[in-house]
Amino acid sequence: MFCLHICYFIFLNYGKKKLITNFEHLERLSNRSRYVARSCKEIRDRYNEQEDGLYYLTTANGMVYQTFCDMTTAGGGWTLVASVHENSINGRCTVGDRWSSQQGNNLNLPDGDGNWSNRNTFGTAEGATSDDFKNPGYYDIKAEDMSVWHVPNNFPLDHWNLAAILRYHTNNRFLRLYGGNLFQLFKHYPVRYNIGSCSNRGPAVPIVYDHGDRETTRMFYGLKPRKEFEPGFITFRAINNERAAMAICSGVKPIAGCNTEHYCIGGGGYFYPDQCGDFPSFDYDSLGMGQGWSASKEMTEAAVLLFYR
Amino acid sequence: MFCLHICYFIFLNYGKKKLITNFEHLERLSNRSRYVARSCKEIRDRYNEQEDGLYYLTTANGMVYQTFCDMTTAGGGWTLVASVHENSINGRCTVGDRWSSQQGNNLNLPDGDGNWSNRNTFGTAEGATSDDFKNPGYYDIKAEDMSVWHVPNNFPLDHWNLAAILRYHTNNRFLRLYGGNLFQLFKHYPVRYNIGSCSNRGPAVPIVYDHGDRETTRMFYGLKPRKEFEPGFITFRAINNERAAMAICSGVKPIAGCNTEHYCIGGGGYFYPDQCGDFPSFDYDSLGMGQGWSASKEMTEAAVLLFYR
Amino acid sequence: MFCLHICYFIFLNYGKKKLITNFEHLERLSNRSRYVARSCKEIRDRYNEQEDGLYYLTTANGMVYQTFCDMTTAGGGWTLVASVHENSINGRCTVGDRWSSQQGNNLNLPDGDGNWSNRNTFGTAEGATSDDFKNPGYYDIKAEDMSVWHVPNNFPLDHWNLAAILRYHTNNRFLRLYGGNLFQLFKHYPVRYNIGSCSNRGPAVPIVYDHGDRETTRMFYGLKPRKEFEPGFITFRAINNERAAMAICSGVKPIAGCNTEHYCIGGGGYFYPDQCGDFPSFDYDSLGMGQGWSASKEMTEAAVLLFYR
Repeated sequence: MFCLHICYFIFLNYGKKKLITNFEHLERLSNRSRYVARSCKEIRDRYNEQEDGLYYLTTANGMVYQTFCDMTTAGGGWTLVASVHENSINGRCTVGDRWSSQQGNNLNLPDGDGNWSNRNTFGTAEGATSDDFKNPGYYDIKAEDMSVWHVPNNFPLDHWNLAAILRYHTNNRFLRLYGGNLFQLFKHYPVRYNIGSCSNRGPAVPIVYDHGDRETTRMFYGLKPRKEFEPGFITFRAINNERAAMAICSGVKPIAGCNTEHYCIGGGGYFYPDQCGDFPSFDYDSLGMGQGWSASKEMTEAAVLLFYR
Repeated sequence: MFCLHICYFIFLNYGKKKLITNFEHLERLSNRSRYVARSCKEIRDRYNEQEDGLYYLTTANGMVYQTFCDMTTAGGGWTLVASVHENSINGRCTVGDRWSSQQGNNLNLPDGDGNWSNRNTFGTAEGATSDDFKNPGYYDIKAEDMSVWHVPNNFPLDHWNLAAILRYHTNNRFLRLYGGNLFQLFKHYPVRYNIGSCSNRGPAVPIVYDHGDRETTRMFYGLKPRKEFEPGFITFRAINNERAAMAICSGVKPIAGCNTEHYCIGGGGYFYPDQCGDFPSFDYDSLGMGQGWSASKEMTEAAVLLFYR
Repeated sequence: MFCLHICYFIFLNYGKKKLITNFEHLERLSNRSRYVARSCKEIRDRYNEQEDGLYYLTTANGMVYQTFCDMTTAGGGWTLVASVHENSINGRCTVGDRWSSQQGNNLNLPDGDGNWSNRNTFGTAEGATSDDFKNPGYYDIKAEDMSVWHVPNNFPLDHWNLAAILRYHTNNRFLRLYGGNLFQLFKHYPVRYNIGSCSNRGPAVPIVYDHGDRETTRMFYGLKPRKEFEPGFITFRAINNERAAMAICSGVKPIAGCNTEHYCIGGGGYFYPDQCGDFPSFDYDSLGMGQGWSASKEMTEAAVLLFYR
């Protein structure tokens, strides 16, 4: 199991750091509330901060929120803006499927909950591996690149980096072409049932790996999808054979077959047959076995954390 | 379409204001965290603020939150305390119907979720046109009058005023008679199935228009309801022929027929037949056509923003 | 009715305190934002605060939140970290059943929503008697003892103490043995269907009463459960005859019969027969009558507030 290598380390360190409150440390963190910036990149640039952790950000309208900044990967300055967490792989667009729909599989609601392109927010940074998360940065920050971490469910924030099964980022500034963030990108490419056919997918952007590689990415998905995608990309707004829309194929680019429901996440409000959900059909024929069409247990039980820079 | 007149303007201005962070502006907004006040009216009076936007407020118990203040309409000082947003007009008291019930149409839950008269809160000011919103001001502020904005779904906060299809307010200090806010008013007039008959509705308060008029109000509803209400009022706790309770008939006063489910919003947890929802039966026979009993597309797809002063 | 004694008092005092904003008081509350501490106990010890009310706390990672501190009971320093609120006693693991499951009674989801042992948070302190509440303190604070208040639904924060039908706390520092909080305790004793049989319950910890006693505790439950438990304890992770898991038997210890679904709260995602919910089968045969197996109306309509120290 992926955890064997690191769980013991984490266990050993847990007690020391947390049992007695270090007030100096706590006051230092607390002083970050004086920073005024719209992104982690601005925090890094204005205040010369290089430590990973929680910071305060402010939207253009002045709304204040806390989120996690990755200040180390490839120069740092990455803002956590969202996480996609599968709370119940058997649920079919039930409560908790905020990145597809919480209304059941529903032909009358082709956009589902619409959270990929609205200003609704939910969850907290510390809870980002325990439930869905979306903060105002998702729509407010003007960014150039994205980073993605796949972190096993329920891992604590201070161990995300170490625990992640995959980490990678883009570096070609593709978001400049699509309005500077996913909120704008998904206005160009709506995550909506029946918006087009399999060939109408959005951009596929090459990635640089920070943990893992193309081969490990491939192995986290099922035997059969492995023949239908190419690892090394983030792909946006995929569409499957049945005209269902998905938001992100994280780590891969569909190249054949159009059965994207087995390896892409998020979605509109309708899938035929009933595969509706945040991780739509990751459990198709052999849940967590990585056989047939189904994704591995590691992938199915990891939250997908989305960063901007 | 209502948007034609203003969308181009909004598009033109979007880039200039938001692409590069104006730190001076951001720090000015950020300094508002020093204000201590329980309402936008107090912000205006104590700090002489006249700019629309987000401010910090504090409840009597000391809970701090951010919300939008309208500092311009009729002297300003209006606090946004809630929005009623229909996330799925086909859903019948499903997830997201917080102003009626998320438990399905249910005779055993006559009060539904009970949010009109409890201290539960949800959503954010910036997300108030993307999802339901209710902040502590709803139950904490002692006010005299109300203002209502009908804003097309997903419009950004800085364009609400311009984009609203209707804006109006009361000016007779009616809330003094009902405990100073809707939380108290709805204790006097519970939004509960079978609490009384059509004749037991709550107060109907005359309004002054800030955008739109009695005739435009009338046209946003269906052909048949137009014969059953009189525009120019906010009416509270309407009851229909089938003894279902609704919270607010915004812009109108029922005068005949008792088919209020086609033009009043919010509700208890049971409607017969199954018309349960935040906008109960706005889609009765011709969704979005403004024909028959159904409301117009403009009204069905606009969030109802509630302000106190 | 329990309220007779105190409601008039509350009514009398309501107007005086709240109608006109006391800015001095508000600024004093507002100054608490300068405190840096991880628990109410630290607030009491570092800043010598002895007043009940809302304070700011900071997690080890620096996340800031507001919650209620009980600074008076048995020396004070108690942090409110959660409330279990039954929004619909007829709902069977429907929306709002966050302490069991919002996915319906579901054999495929034995842990239900999993909130007893993850970092998801929801609700607000002021809304803790109107809806479920869980803040970062639940998983962040390292505590020794617990306190529990049973407060009638929808009572305001400043009257919880007075309005509670039961208040009690542990004083044997049992949490030291289980990782310092419920988050850790429930990792040792998962709240999961089919994790064991009735005999595999977790610890039963003796309590000291602050309001009420063993006899009043007994009378708040049904005639038949009274023969199956002993009052004077908090019991964790009870399991019933049908192998359903419950999180807390608050005020009592199961000693016979294993029908814990009638007096223990919270749970995994599956109960046989369908008794799934935050207050699983408190309404079994005579809702709110305290007859047969059903709990009293007082207990069914009171939120269970959980404190750490």
